[in-house]
Amino acid sequence: MEMKLPGQEGFEASSAPRNIPSGELDSNPDPGTGPSPDGPSDTDSKELGVPKDPLLFIQLNELLGWPQALEWRETGRWVLFEEKLEVAAGRWSAPHVPTLALPSLQKLRSLLAEGLVLLDCPAQSLLELVEQVTRVESLSPELRGQLQALLLQRPQHYNQTTGTRPCWGSTHPRKASNNEEAPMREQCQNPLRQKLPPGAEAGTVLAGELGFLAQPLGAFVRLRDPVVLGSLTEVSLPSRFFCLLLGPRMLGKGYHEMGRAAAVLLSDPQFQWSVRRASNLHDLLSALDAFLEEVTVLPPGRWDPTARIPPPKCLPSQHKRLPSQQREIRGHAVPRLTSAEDRHRHGPHAPSPELQRTGRKVPWYPSDFFDALHLQCFSAVLYIYLATVTNAITFGGLLGDATDGAQGVLESFLGTAVAGAAFCLMAGQPLTILSSTGPVLVFERLLFSFSRDYSLDYLPFRLWVGIWVATFCLVLVATEASVLVRYFTRFTEEGFCALISLIFIYDAVGKMLNLTHTYPIQKPGSSAYGCLCQYPGPGGNESQWIRTRPKDRDDIDLGLINASLLPPPECTRQGGHPRGPGCHTVPDIAFFSLLLFLTSFFFAMALKCVKTSRFFPSVVRKGLSDFSSVLAILLGCGLDAFLGLATPKLMVPREFKPTLSGRGWLVSPFGANPWWWSVAAALPALLLSILIFMDQQITAVILNRVEYRLQKGAGFHLDLFCVAVLMLLTSALGLPWYVSATVISLAHMDSLRRESRACAPGERPNFLGIREQRLTGLVVFILTGASIFLAPVLKFIPMPVLYGIFLYMGVAALSSIQFTKRVKLLLMPAKHQPDLLLLRHVPLTRVHLFTAIQLACLGLLWIIKSTPAAIVFPLMLLGLVGVRKALERVFSPQELFWLDELMPEEERSIPEKGLESEHSFSGSDSEDSELMYQPKAPEINISVN
Amino acid sequence: MEMKLPGQEGFEASSAPRNIPSGELDSNPDPGTGPSPDGPSDTDSKELGVPKDPLLFIQLNELLGWPQALEWRETGRWVLFEEKLEVAAGRWSAPHVPTLALPSLQKLRSLLAEGLVLLDCPAQSLLELVEQVTRVESLSPELRGQLQALLLQRPQHYNQTTGTRPCWGSTHPRKASNNEEAPMREQCQNPLRQKLPPGAEAGTVLAGELGFLAQPLGAFVRLRDPVVLGSLTEVSLPSRFFCLLLGPRMLGKGYHEMGRAAAVLLSDPQFQWSVRRASNLHDLLSALDAFLEEVTVLPPGRWDPTARIPPPKCLPSQHKRLPSQQREIRGHAVPRLTSAEDRHRHGPHAPSPELQRTGRKVPWYPSDFFDALHLQCFSAVLYIYLATVTNAITFGGLLGDATDGAQGVLESFLGTAVAGAAFCLMAGQPLTILSSTGPVLVFERLLFSFSRDYSLDYLPFRLWVGIWVATFCLVLVATEASVLVRYFTRFTEEGFCALISLIFIYDAVGKMLNLTHTYPIQKPGSSAYGCLCQYPGPGGNESQWIRTRPKDRDDIDLGLINASLLPPPECTRQGGHPRGPGCHTVPDIAFFSLLLFLTSFFFAMALKCVKTSRFFPSVVRKGLSDFSSVLAILLGCGLDAFLGLATPKLMVPREFKPTLSGRGWLVSPFGANPWWWSVAAALPALLLSILIFMDQQITAVILNRVEYRLQKGAGFHLDLFCVAVLMLLTSALGLPWYVSATVISLAHMDSLRRESRACAPGERPNFLGIREQRLTGLVVFILTGASIFLAPVLKFIPMPVLYGIFLYMGVAALSSIQFTKRVKLLLMPAKHQPDLLLLRHVPLTRVHLFTAIQLACLGLLWIIKSTPAAIVFPLMLLGLVGVRKALERVFSPQELFWLDELMPEEERSIPEKGLESEHSFSGSDSEDSELMYQPKAPEINISVN
Repeated sequence: MEMKLPGQEGFEASSAPRNIPSGELDSNPDPGTGPSPDGPSDTDSKELGVPKDPLLFIQLNELLGWPQALEWRETGRWVLFEEKLEVAAGRWSAPHVPTLALPSLQKLRSLLAEGLVLLDCPAQSLLELVEQVTRVESLSPELRGQLQALLLQRPQHYNQTTGTRPCWGSTHPRKASNNEEAPMREQCQNPLRQKLPPGAEAGTVLAGELGFLAQPLGAFVRLRDPVVLGSLTEVSLPSRFFCLLLGPRMLGKGYHEMGRAAAVLLSDPQFQWSVRRASNLHDLLSALDAFLEEVTVLPPGRWDPTARIPPPKCLPSQHKRLPSQQREIRGHAVPRLTSAEDRHRHGPHAPSPELQRTGRKVPWYPSDFFDALHLQCFSAVLYIYLATVTNAITFGGLLGDATDGAQGVLESFLGTAVAGAAFCLMAGQPLTILSSTGPVLVFERLLFSFSRDYSLDYLPFRLWVGIWVATFCLVLVATEASVLVRYFTRFTEEGFCALISLIFIYDAVGKMLNLTHTYPIQKPGSSAYGCLCQYPGPGGNESQWIRTRPKDRDDIDLGLINASLLPPPECTRQGGHPRGPGCHTVPDIAFFSLLLFLTSFFFAMALKCVKTSRFFPSVVRKGLSDFSSVLAILLGCGLDAFLGLATPKLMVPREFKPTLSGRGWLVSPFGANPWWWSVAAALPALLLSILIFMDQQITAVILNRVEYRLQKGAGFHLDLFCVAVLMLLTSALGLPWYVSATVISLAHMDSLRRESRACAPGERPNFLGIREQRLTGLVVFILTGASIFLAPVLKFIPMPVLYGIFLYMGVAALSSIQFTKRVKLLLMPAKHQPDLLLLRHVPLTRVHLFTAIQLACLGLLWIIKSTPAAIVFPLMLLGLVGVRKALERVFSPQELFWLDELMPEEERSIPEKGLESEHSFSGSDSEDSELMYQPKAPEINISVN
Repeated sequence: MEMKLPGQEGFEASSAPRNIPSGELDSNPDPGTGPSPDGPSDTDSKELGVPKDPLLFIQLNELLGWPQALEWRETGRWVLFEEKLEVAAGRWSAPHVPTLALPSLQKLRSLLAEGLVLLDCPAQSLLELVEQVTRVESLSPELRGQLQALLLQRPQHYNQTTGTRPCWGSTHPRKASNNEEAPMREQCQNPLRQKLPPGAEAGTVLAGELGFLAQPLGAFVRLRDPVVLGSLTEVSLPSRFFCLLLGPRMLGKGYHEMGRAAAVLLSDPQFQWSVRRASNLHDLLSALDAFLEEVTVLPPGRWDPTARIPPPKCLPSQHKRLPSQQREIRGHAVPRLTSAEDRHRHGPHAPSPELQRTGRKVPWYPSDFFDALHLQCFSAVLYIYLATVTNAITFGGLLGDATDGAQGVLESFLGTAVAGAAFCLMAGQPLTILSSTGPVLVFERLLFSFSRDYSLDYLPFRLWVGIWVATFCLVLVATEASVLVRYFTRFTEEGFCALISLIFIYDAVGKMLNLTHTYPIQKPGSSAYGCLCQYPGPGGNESQWIRTRPKDRDDIDLGLINASLLPPPECTRQGGHPRGPGCHTVPDIAFFSLLLFLTSFFFAMALKCVKTSRFFPSVVRKGLSDFSSVLAILLGCGLDAFLGLATPKLMVPREFKPTLSGRGWLVSPFGANPWWWSVAAALPALLLSILIFMDQQITAVILNRVEYRLQKGAGFHLDLFCVAVLMLLTSALGLPWYVSATVISLAHMDSLRRESRACAPGERPNFLGIREQRLTGLVVFILTGASIFLAPVLKFIPMPVLYGIFLYMGVAALSSIQFTKRVKLLLMPAKHQPDLLLLRHVPLTRVHLFTAIQLACLGLLWIIKSTPAAIVFPLMLLGLVGVRKALERVFSPQELFWLDELMPEEERSIPEKGLESEHSFSGSDSEDSELMYQPKAPEINISVN
C-alpha cells in the first residue's frame, strides 16, 4: 500500500521539468550483488568485494539573526545518530536517536514537491552550486543576488578542539570569497574527521527564515561528482547532497524542524539508498513516503518529545525493510545475507558445523605466525601473561595447600609453561589457554584425600591415573566421541559451572575460617594467655646468660634469674624454652587475615565494575578492570607488608626443585605402592576422563561459537589428543593436569578482537573477527616459564589474599550464568522482573519449576560431594545429561528451547518453522524476532579462572 | 495548519448522515473552570471542585482462529501505558509507552471516515449496542445475524488471579445469552479493578479478520450513558466507548495494529477529551488529526519498532497541548493552572512566600491533632522513633566521647525527649524533628577543647554560651532577620553541608584509628610481649597462695613459687601483680574493631541501596532501607556479642543521673570559673548563634519548599524563638543543644506523604500532600523519653559500630549534594557525562571553574578548622555568602542560575523572560522547558543525621 500525504494530490501532474535524470543509475544491475543499504556498519559486504554506498555525514546549518546579523551556524549533525549543539554550553550533546514531529516531515515533503530537485547536478564548486539552486523563476534578479551572497557566506562551526570558551570558526563572520577556499585547518583537525572512514561523503542541509522571501524556497541537490564545497561543512568531506529550506517568517521553529527532518531522512540508510538512485522527483517523494510508512510513532500524551533517547545497543536490522522497499523503487532483489548472518538466522544455539569434521589446520600454519604482527598482540600478551601468572600463583598455592605440597607454585609455573606452550604449537585451536582449572583441582583434592585414606604414595598413584586418563582420552579421540558434546546443553553446562563455582566459594571461605583455628582469637577469659622464657634450670650457667642478655631491650626486671619475657623465637635463640599456653598463639593474625581476605575480594569485585562506570577514559577503565585480580593481589601484599604481621604466606621452594622434598623431577612408576594399584588407578582415571572430556569439549564448543567468526576452523579431536599427551607428560613429571580454560581463553580472544575503528558518534564499534594466530599464546607461556625465577618474590604473597581472589573467581563465575539469573527471579516480584525474552515466552511458574529442578540437582550433587563417595562426582555430572533428557517429559520443546537449548532429537521433533508459528493466533509472534537474531554473548563460564 | 491524510480528500462530501449530534456538549461553558484534559494524574482540579472526565480503561479484544474456531481474546489493555498479553508466557507485559506504525493510524482513519460513527448512542445493553452497530446497508440479513452472534460471543480474558497455567475466563468458549449477564466474579476480583478509581469508564476495541466480510467494517460508538456490557471487558466497568474494526483477510497484522492504534488514541488524554465532546464525524477526525500532528516520530533506521520503552519518570505536561488544540476544536480557553503548578512556573528556586510573613498557626491547632488519626501515622511514629533513638545513641555516644563525659547518652535521650516534645507542641512547623545535629556537635567539640585549653569548668561556661545564644537568637527573631536566609543560596548550603560531612568522615575514621593506639597491634618483633603474674615476693605467704590456687585451670607448672601465668584480671583478684609489657595489651581488639566499623558502614550503605533493587516486595525493601542504621547497629552488636571480645562499649550510667559524676541536673551558673568568663562567653556564643541561625533556617527553608505542598504554613520566626528558649533550657540542665535536623525531618514528612492510591499500571503514585499534624512528633519524643530506661541495654553497643554509622551518615550526606555530582564530573570524560540540564546550558569549563572555586573554599575552611582558630569556623561559613556574592563578577547570571540559584538582587538584574530568551537565536530555547518545571527533589542534606 503506497502512502499519500496531504499536499501530495496535485503534485504528480505539476512534476517539475527541471529534474535532471540520473545517469549513473542501474550501473549495478546484478541482483545478487546489489549494494546493501545496511548502513555503514555492515563490513562483511566489503570483504566480499561488493561496492558499497559511502558513509554520509550530514550537517544542519541554520540561518540565524534575521534581520540584522544574518549568519549561518551549524546546529546539528548526524552520522548514525543526532548530535545537537548545546549553544549555551558550547558542546555537542550526547548522540541520541533523532525524534521528529510529523508535521515537519509533511511540510518538508510539500516544500520539496514544489521546489527544485536537481539529481546529478554537475556543479564543481560551491559557487556553481549556488548559481544552480538560485535559478528559480520566482526570484527577482536582485533577490537572487542577495541570496547568492548569503549562501556563499561562511558558516560558523563549533570548534571542539579549542580551549575554554566555545570557540567558533571565526569571531567576526566575514564573507567567503566566491572561489573555493582551500579546506581550512580546523576542518582537517576535527576529531570527527578521524572517525569517519575514507570515502565518506557529506550532505548539508541549510534551513532558516529569510524575511525578504515572499514564499518558501526548497531545493534538493544530488551532486554528480562529490566535491568539497569550501568550508560549508565542519569536516572537509566531498559533498554529495545539498538541501536548502528557506522561507518567510513562520510561527514556531518551522525551518529548524524541517531542516532536522531533512537531515534525519538523509541519515536513514534506506532513504539514502533510494535517493542515491532516484532519477526524478517522484522517486525522491516515494522514498520519503516509504520512510514515513516505517516510522515508529509515539503518542503525545505518553511521551515527552523533548526527551532524548540514547542510542540502542544494537541497530535494527535493515534486512526486513529491504524486500518491499526495493521492489517498490527499483525492482532490485534482496542482497544475499552474509554467511555469518546466515548462520545467526539458523538459530543462536545451532551446533557449530566444526563438530562434524576435524579441522584441517596445516594450511593455516604459516599464517598463524604472520598474523600476529600487530601492535594489539603485544597488549594481548601482557594481559594474558599477567592473568596466567595470577592463575599459576593462585592455583599453585591452592594445589600445594590441598596436596600437602605434592604440587606447588613451582610445579604450577613449570607445568603451565610447558603444557601451554606445547598446546599452542600443536593444537587445533591455538587461542586456547590451558590451565590447571577448577574441576580438575577439585578432583585432584579428592584423589589426594582418597590416596591418603589408603596410605598410598600419592605421586606414583597419580602417574598411573594420568596414564589411564591419556589412554581413555585417546580412545575417545579415536572413536570421534566429541560428537557427543551436542548432548551437553546449557542445563548440563550450567549445572557443571554452578557446582564448581560453589565448591570454589565453599573452599575459599572454609580455608579462611581454618586460619582462625591455626591462629586462635584470644577471648578475655581464654586460657591461652601468658608466655614465659625459661632457662635450663636454677643454678645453671646463669652468668653466661646474663652476659648475653641484650641491654637495649627495655625488658622489665622480673627479679627472677631463670626466666624472662623474651618472645618465643628470641627465647629459643638464647637457649631458653618458651613456657606457657600463650607461647604458641600469634595474636591479631586471624582478624588481619580476614581483613586481607575481604579486602582482596571486594577490591577485585569493585575493579571489575569499573569497566561500566562513567569515570576515567575507557583505556584506564579497561586496564583497571582487566587487571583487577593482579591489582587486588598487589593491594593485599602491600597492606600485609605495611603492617608486617606474620600472616601465613605462599610456600615457595628456595631453589629450582620440586616442592615435595626428596623427589626428583621424574615420578617413579610404583614408589611404595603395591603393583596392582596401577591397575586400580583405572577406576578414578575413568572418572577423571569424563571430567576432562566434559570440561575440554564444553570449553571448545564455547570458544568456537559462530559469534566469534573464527576463520581457521576448530580442531575438537586434535585438541583432545593434545590434552591426552600432555596428561601423560605432566603426570610423569608430577606437574598439575591441564585442560582448556574457558574464561581466560575467552579473555585471550577478546583481547585479539578486530573491530572497526572508524565509528560514528553513538555507534558501538563493529566486531570484525579475531586475530587467530599461535604467537601470542606461545609468548605468554614462554614468559610464564621465565617467571619461575620470580619465585623468591612470590613468598611475600599472603595466603588470605589468594583465598580472596579464589572467592572472587567463584562468585564471578556463578554470577555469569543464566541459572543464577533465574534463581534471582525467584526473589523478585513479577512486576519488577526484567523484560527477559524467556519470560515473554514461558509462563513464570514453568520457569520457576525449571529453576527448582536445577537447584534440586545441585543440592543432590552437593550431598554426594560431601559423602565418602565424593570422588564419583564426575559421573554425577554426566547424570545431569540424563536428567535433562528426562525433562523432555515435563516441559514442551518450546519451553525447553527458551529455558535451555534443544538436544539433537528434539530439534527434529519440532516441525519446520514450528517455533515461530507456535502461537500464531496471537498475531504477535514475530515481534521479538529482531532480538532473537542478536548474537548471544557467551554466557557460560565453565571454568572459573 | 490542519493536516490531511490520504483517503481523506473525498470524505467530507460523503460525511455520514448517521452521526448523532451530541447533547451533552458545552455543558460547561465557563472558560475559567473548563475541565482539564490532563489525564488522571491531575488531582488538584478534583480538590478545586471542578468536574473531571473519568479515567478510561481500554481493552483490545481480537478475533482469532478464523475460520474454524472463532473466538475473541483480550490481547492488550491501556490505562496510561500499554500492557500486552504475552500469550505464551501467560502474563501481562510490563507497562510500556505504546509505539504505533504510521500506516495503521492512517488505515484506521480511513476506516472510521467511511464507517459508522454513533455519538451518544442510547443503547442500554450489549444486545442493543450490537444491533445498532450492525445496522449497516452493506450487510445482508444473513451476514448481519452471523455478525451479531459473533459479537455477542463472550471474550476470553487472561485471568491473573489464578494458579500455575495461564487460565482463561472459560476453557470452552460458549455463546453468551443475549441479555446482560451479571458481572462475573472474576471481573470483580481482578486486581486491576482495585487500582482504578471509582467512576472509571471502559472503552473496548474489537478488531480482527472475518473472512466472510466483503469489505472492511468500522464502527465507533460513544454511549450516552455508560453501561456495563456484560463480560465484554476484563474488569466490570461501565463502557463509554466501543470501536469495531473488522474486515476481510489482510496481509500482515493489519487489524491487530489498527486495533492498537484505536486503543492508543482513546488512551491519549487530549483525544479522549475531544472525542467525549465531539458532535460529529468531523470532530472525531479532527481530533485524530490533532493527535497525528503532535506525535513523536522515530526514524526506522535508528529505532527498532519492537523495542519497548519503559514509562517515563514523569508524564509530559498536557498544558502545552491545550491552547491551539482547544482553539481548534471547541474554542475553549485554557483551563487555569493549579496553584502549585503556577508556583513551579515561577521557577524552581523562587523563595517560598512564607519567608515574608510569619505563619498564623493558631487556627490550625485543633486540626493538628485530629489530622493524625490515620493508620499511616502509626508507622511514621515507629520509623521516626527508631531513627531518633539511633541518633540519640550515636550522637550521645560521640558527644560523651568528645566532651569527656560532660554529655552522654543519658543526656542525649533526656534532651531529645524534652526539647523535641516541647518543640512539637509550640513550633510553627511541628513536622520538624530536633536533633543535637552535626554542625552543633562539631562546635561543641571545639568549644570543649577551647575550655580545656583555658582550664575552664566546662558546663558553667557552656551555660553562659547558651544564655548568650538565646539572647542573640531572640534579637534575630525580633528583627525578623530570617528574611536574610534568602542570601543563603545553594552555594552556601552545599559548602556548609560538605564541610560538616567531611568533618564527620574525618572524625569517624580518626576515632577508629585512635583505637589502634589504645589497643596496639602486636607485631612479630614487638616488645609488648609476655605477661607474668607475680606474687608479693619470695619467702612471702606462699603456702596460702598455693592453697587458693584454682585446681581446675590447666595452668602449666612453671616450677616457680612466686609467679604464674594467670591473666591480669584474675591475677589481681588473687592478690598478685601482673608484670610484663604484654599485660596491658588486649590482642585482636584493634582489627576486630576495624571489622565492626567496616561491617556496620558497608551494611548500612548496602541496605540503603536495597530500596532501588528489584528484589523483594516493595514493603520489605522500604523497611530494610528505612531501618538501615538500626539494622547495621544490630548486626554489629550481634557480631560483637557472638565473639565476646572486650571491644570498647558505649558508656552508660547505671542509674538515672548525669553522666559526669558529681554534678546535679542543674548546672551551677559559675562553678570554678572567674565571673568575667560569663561575659567572655558572648564571643563564642555569637559564633554559635550564626551557626544555629544558618542551620535552623536553611533546614526550615528546605522543609517548607513548595514541592511539599504544605497547607498550614510555616513559622520561621516562631521556630527560631522556640530554638532560643530550648537553648536556655538545655544549657541550664547540661543537655545537648538542639536545632532542626533536615534529613530526619524530611524523612518524617516523607513517611506522612499522602499519595493517590489508585494508579494505573506504569504510573507512579501521585503526591497529594503531607499529613501535617503535631501528634506523630509528640509521640515519638514521649517514646524517646521512655527509652531512657533502655539504657542498661545500650552498654552492649560497641563504639566502632557507632563510628561506622557516623561514617555512613557523613558519606550519605556528602553524596546527596549537587557539589559532589560536579566533583565527579571532573573525573568523567565529556562523552560519558550524564545529560544534566546544567551541562546543556553552561560550558563545561565554567562548570569546572565553579566546582574548583567551591573546592578551594572548602580547602580554606578545612585549613582554618585545623588551626587553633578553629572555633571561628561559623564565621567562615558566613564568609561563603560573601564569596558567592563575589562570584557574580566571574559568572553571568545565566550561569549562576544553572550552577546555583539567584540572589534577590540578581533576580532583578535579569529582565523578564531573560532566561528563556537567552539564546533565542539557537531556536531551541524551549526544548527543555518541560524538564525545568519538574519539581526538584530536595537535594540538600544540610544536617547529616
